[in-house]
This record gives sequence, structure tokens and C-alpha cells, in this order.
Amino acid sequence: LSAHRAVDVVGLDADDTLWHCEDGFNRAIDEFVEVLAPSSALGDAEHIREALDRTERLNLPLFGYGVKAFTIAMIEAAAMISDDRLTARMVDQVVDIGKRLFAEPVVLIDGVAEVVARLAPDYRLVMITKGDLLHQERKISESGLARHFDAIEVISEKDPATYRRVLHELRIDPAGFVMVGNSVRSDVLPVLSIGARAVHVPYEVVWAHEVAVHDGSVPELASIRELPAWLRDGDAR
Amino acid sequence: LSAHRAVDVVGLDADDTLWHCEDGFNRAIDEFVEVLAPSSALGDAEHIREALDRTERLNLPLFGYGVKAFTIAMIEAAAMISDDRLTARMVDQVVDIGKRLFAEPVVLIDGVAEVVARLAPDYRLVMITKGDLLHQERKISESGLARHFDAIEVISEKDPATYRRVLHELRIDPAGFVMVGNSVRSDVLPVLSIGARAVHVPYEVVWAHEVAVHDGSVPELASIRELPAWLRDGDAR
Repeated sequence: LSAHRAVDVVGLDADDTLWHCEDGFNRAIDEFVEVLAPSSALGDAEHIREALDRTERLNLPLFGYGVKAFTIAMIEAAAMISDDRLTARMVDQVVDIGKRLFAEPVVLIDGVAEVVARLAPDYRLVMITKGDLLHQERKISESGLARHFDAIEVISEKDPATYRRVLHELRIDPAGFVMVGNSVRSDVLPVLSIGARAVHVPYEVVWAHEVAVHDGSVPELASIRELPAWLRDGDAR
Repeated sequence: LSAHRAVDVVGLDADDTLWHCEDGFNRAIDEFVEVLAPSSALGDAEHIREALDRTERLNLPLFGYGVKAFTIAMIEAAAMISDDRLTARMVDQVVDIGKRLFAEPVVLIDGVAEVVARLAPDYRLVMITKGDLLHQERKISESGLARHFDAIEVISEKDPATYRRVLHELRIDPAGFVMVGNSVRSDVLPVLSIGARAVHVPYEVVWAHEVAVHDGSVPELASIRELPAWLRDGDAR
């Protein structure tokens, strides 16, 4: 038996935990390279990727996460990469990459629909996710999962202060809360730091900005399919 | 005496109700015209404004409200207006207009600081606003008003269904709720339609997208300074 109380509220990250996301960004980056490569003053695909990544990082503190911020970064990077070879047609193509990414249909990760439906009767489920508010609302609504969630929180940063505020607003005791997500940096470490529990379910692709250094002691599941047993068998305690 | 119960919760819109917003967009549009005019294939300033406005409207269902969506619309409109005269420098200038608008300091509307401080002890105050989540959070934090509000809700659309959901989540009875805002279309009509009360406090500039047709029976105050007396004297009942 553990000194902790049992888990009664499960927080779930959305992008790359419930549905695929990062692979869409990666396809968009490939398309961006294809549009830019013929006019690049910077050289090969690797340099184009680096220029885009640098622009995204520089804009993060101002514009935050999500497809709209990413679209603006692509346009800025395109202007820098092509310089006097930039054309209106290239700008249109780049904006279209962003629009297609925004409108992409939601594809659930294998096992998610079953696991969420199985947990819903026994736990209070809350979705805690970053990104564009409008985009996340649309994805949640399309996913068919909304009815299983008691609350849906779209936040702009996943740091300890924001988790503390969200749990307080939702009247959730950290001692009975576990957060589930694909990012050690965003879904696990800040949650552990406020005295709640967290479990890492890695996604097939890791966004470079989300890589975190940790000592390997973070609980990890190979698939979200293992979550109900992990919660039930007390490994979460 | 009225058949209604007394108001105990006051909802306040933020942009152009608590702080200036639309005038910043208007300055940004003037700067956009200045950047585009020399290369415009469309003619004068009025045509440039119309092209931008059309692009914004076309993008609204996809990208929603806020400075990031506006920045993307400016870039698309610039590509269309300048066509083969578009340069990387112009794209940079347009992106910069968006970045400066995003980073603009919050300026409270006259009387707001006093009125909010005066209402806070007697009413539960909630802020209900549209726009970019990150941008609104930053403005709320900068405004110095956050401590007076019991809840802050950033939503993507101000329609009856969304107001109903927000009031339900915050456990607010519509019969005791009044919404205060500068837009008849977003802050008044949808709120009246769910059985709550609302009062219109016009801003000096009305965004064309927010113009609504109504029969003139909507309660209106000349200034937010009149709100405490209006609530107290029962005109809200």
C-alpha cells in the first residue's frame, strides 16, 4: 500500500497522445522544403529546415504554439531563404500549406477510442492541451471523444504554475491526479513538480522543442492500451 | 419590482470594452496600406483595404479571430495585391506590423479601472472574450485587472451555444447574469437569447464584422462609468 491516495482524475494531453499531430507538421515541413528548394539562397533541404526551425523558436515567446504561429514562421523563413527570388506564388503556396494543416482531419492514435471509453465510467477525465484554441476545439469536436471528458482546458504553456491554476479551477486535488502525455517536458516533469503523478506514453515522432533531459525514473508505457491496467493495478500509486 | 431575480454575476467582454483594441488594428491597416501602395496593382488605398477585408472574412471560418489570423490575412492580401512586384522586404514589413500589434501595450479604457474595482466586492466578475488565447492571457495579466475576476474565459465564438456552455461550466444561473460589451452582435443578442441580460457600451470604433441589425430596444450606456448605477438602480432588472 502506498502513502498516496488513489487516482480519481486522469488528465490527458491531446496532440500526439490522443490523435496524430507531429507527423502532420513533418509533412508540412517537407512540402515547405519542396516549395523553397528551387529558389533557396541557403543551399540544401537541411539548411531550409534549420532556417524554419530557428524562426519558429525565435517567435515562440511572442506567438506561442499552434498552426497559425507555424504558418507565420514559414512565411518569415521563406522571405529570408529566397530573398530576392521570393514570388507571390511561393507565398500563396506556403500559406496553403498552413491552411491544409489546419484543416487536416483528426486521426486517433491506435487504442485511444477504446481506452478513453473504458476509463470514462471509473475516472473523471480532463483534457489538458496547448495550441490554437479554435483549432483544438475543432479537433476535440471532430474526435468524437468530447462526451467522455468532464472538462477541456486549452492552455498556452504547460508549466507548473499553469497546471496548479488549472487543477485549482477544476477543484482537483493533485494527490488524486495523474497526467498522461507524450512529452516528458510538458506532460510529466511540471506535473510531478506540483505533487501530482504523471506517466509518459511516447509518440513515434518527438518534436525537437519538446525533448527533455531526465534521469530515466519517469514512468513510461509503451502504448496507451496499457493505461487502464497501470491505473488499476496500482502502478500509479 | 421585476419578475427577474437580481444580478449577481457580471460578465465583461475585454477588447474595446475594458481596453483599446480596434484602434490598434486600424493603425495596423494604415501601415499595411503604406507598405503596399507603391506596388499595388489594384489602385488606391481604398482598394487595398477592401482586398485585406475580403481576405480576412474568407479566412474567418478557418482561422478565427485575433492578431495571428489577421497577420496571415495581411500576407495573403499582400501577395494578391502586389503580385509580381511582391518582395521579401515587403513580406518582412507586413509580418512586423503583425508582431508589433501583438506586442502593443494594454491601454485601459477611461473609467474601467475604477468601475471594475468598485463592482468586484458586490458581484462575481467573469471576463468572457474572443481571440488568441496567448495574446488575451498576456493582455489580462498586463491589465492589472486579473485579481478582480473570478474567472477568465477565452472562447472562439460568441454564439448562444458557447455562452450556454460557459455559464454551465462556471455554475452561473442565466437569470442572475448580465453581460457587458461593445458588440451588440457578440455581447448582447446571443446573451439575451439564452434568457440572461446584457447591456451595450459602444466603443469609439466599430469593426465592420461586428455590426448587427437590431430594433433599438437593446439597453445601452454611454460609458462604462454608468454601469455601477445601472446595476444598483435596478435598470438591469
